[in-house]
Amino acid sequence: MRTLEWDPKNNTLKLIDQRYLPARFEIYTCHTYKDVIYSIKEMVVRGAPAIGVAAAYGMAIAAMHASSTTVENFKEEIKKFGAEMMASRPTAVNLMWAVRHILSLLDNPGNIEDYQKALLNEAHTMADEDVAINKKISEYGASLIEDGDTIIHHCNTGSLATVDWGTALGSIRMAHEQGKRIHVLVDETRPRLQGARLTAWELQQAGIPYDIISDNMSGHFMRTGQVNKVFFGADRVTANGDVANKIGSYMLALAAYTNKVPVYSVFPISTVDLSLANGALSPIEERDPQEVLNVSVEGLLVTPKGATARNPSFDVTPNYLITALVTELGVIYPPFNVNLQANITKNGGQN
Amino acid sequence: MRTLEWDPKNNTLKLIDQRYLPARFEIYTCHTYKDVIYSIKEMVVRGAPAIGVAAAYGMAIAAMHASSTTVENFKEEIKKFGAEMMASRPTAVNLMWAVRHILSLLDNPGNIEDYQKALLNEAHTMADEDVAINKKISEYGASLIEDGDTIIHHCNTGSLATVDWGTALGSIRMAHEQGKRIHVLVDETRPRLQGARLTAWELQQAGIPYDIISDNMSGHFMRTGQVNKVFFGADRVTANGDVANKIGSYMLALAAYTNKVPVYSVFPISTVDLSLANGALSPIEERDPQEVLNVSVEGLLVTPKGATARNPSFDVTPNYLITALVTELGVIYPPFNVNLQANITKNGGQN
Repeated sequence: MRTLEWDPKNNTLKLIDQRYLPARFEIYTCHTYKDVIYSIKEMVVRGAPAIGVAAAYGMAIAAMHASSTTVENFKEEIKKFGAEMMASRPTAVNLMWAVRHILSLLDNPGNIEDYQKALLNEAHTMADEDVAINKKISEYGASLIEDGDTIIHHCNTGSLATVDWGTALGSIRMAHEQGKRIHVLVDETRPRLQGARLTAWELQQAGIPYDIISDNMSGHFMRTGQVNKVFFGADRVTANGDVANKIGSYMLALAAYTNKVPVYSVFPISTVDLSLANGALSPIEERDPQEVLNVSVEGLLVTPKGATARNPSFDVTPNYLITALVTELGVIYPPFNVNLQANITKNGGQN
Repeated sequence: MRTLEWDPKNNTLKLIDQRYLPARFEIYTCHTYKDVIYSIKEMVVRGAPAIGVAAAYGMAIAAMHASSTTVENFKEEIKKFGAEMMASRPTAVNLMWAVRHILSLLDNPGNIEDYQKALLNEAHTMADEDVAINKKISEYGASLIEDGDTIIHHCNTGSLATVDWGTALGSIRMAHEQGKRIHVLVDETRPRLQGARLTAWELQQAGIPYDIISDNMSGHFMRTGQVNKVFFGADRVTANGDVANKIGSYMLALAAYTNKVPVYSVFPISTVDLSLANGALSPIEERDPQEVLNVSVEGLLVTPKGATARNPSFDVTPNYLITALVTELGVIYPPFNVNLQANITKNGGQN
């Protein structure tokens, strides 16, 4: 199944529950828009593109269950739900983009039933478009990968981070399907371990050779000449090409830059936030310290009782560390502050 | 108790078993030199200075149990044991230094019983000296710490990494005892989590405020101006001041350098290996991939069945990233390729 699927019989959204993968494969069913918010907050569903589409379905569910009886009140109610949805995770801008895109449908004329249908249809369209966009992104991404490459990949940007296929990991998968021999060093990606959990699992299923590494090892492998490329996704790219992405991306990109290893950030163009001049303005979500503290080895909790932790979930990689941005519009090279805007304008905006 | 203590009644070496701390406090008793080798390999005891002294006691135990009946055979036997001991962990040079230092006693005249006594006495002396040296190092280290500092610390370099007191963490503890208000960001230090396990535990017992962070977060905290200093230890420092230390030190130092945060590597002078021109020549131990793969959260193994991993246990921080080397001979500033050798010569060598 896809990472998220609509159940038309029950009008529910089914999600692959990513909290327990790969140990347990479970489906989480969202009956209400509150369930969708919960699933985004708790990372039942994660990955910027997947979150965006989940939020769109969440809005469709909200419209179905709205209590308002007049069109005016209905619109108000849905906008209120939209604000709540957008607040569920602050960094990934695709979430805001998707909700705003859905809300823009309310500007069309119609009655409540029209809107309910339109919102659900648009969520379906966005889901299908996400897969098509990922394939296009991945073709551009794969064109940067050479036979024999060893690639460091951070977090999870595969099928599980999107509706299907993936972005940075999608590029690696596409290159593999093109017959290029690739070895992936998988950053485990503390604290939530999306690399060790999800990326390793996806690579295993695709038959792509890999080794899991601790995030703090990537510099060593690059300094000793064992790495050709770095690939990761993006949660919010600002107008100058700064990339807010999963915590650890910055240190990885810095070590790559220092050791002359190219760094590619791969994402759908909906990830770009032209309203922010640079990454310092990007909000950084700080999550529950328990995510850092709850690690066990051989059945024993590692951290002392009463330990405290910090848990910023994202960081900002400044544009100078990035070799190119890979999107469905093509591979965009520096200067990003010019070329990002130019590419978007040329292609008729972010819709 | 100290991290390692001699039991004169039973002629055994008692170690605080660091594999299960802080969840379980257990004593591991070494009856034979093979037990000491096991405890070093399996990290029952870890930390370059502690390993050195444990190895010295291991040699004393080996001498007690030697089967040779002539002095000549005895010396051969002990040297063979020494070679085995030195091979137990390849990166930390204090181990080699300690074993060579012990073996040098065999050059003095004596009979088997004389040597047995001399080796044990020398191990006692080295244990006591380690504590005295740590205090001296820590005074120099503490002089670099200011009231109000937030310090990132990597791995464990406290009491548990030494016979007692510690080096980099000893400096932080000394500054705390001098009344300086310090906050420590504790790198959890994947994969063996010495920071989350041991450093957090030591800081908690000393009443020093701290937060555990994932290793991949330190760059974010430095880039956002939340850190004043970086402190870590060393396992082998080459003639030019390159520092081989726990994996992750390089990426931490690189992020610090880039963000103008001073980096201090703190160690006893026995850690310096003047025989190697630079860190590229330093051996890097690669340990069992299971150490990366065996991480669980809430009782569920994170990694997929059949997953593979790489596990280099150390990396090399090039000298240009390091602000100063802190030793019992004082704080040594660049150019290290001149000043390291000069300081050692001035103080009569490494003995």
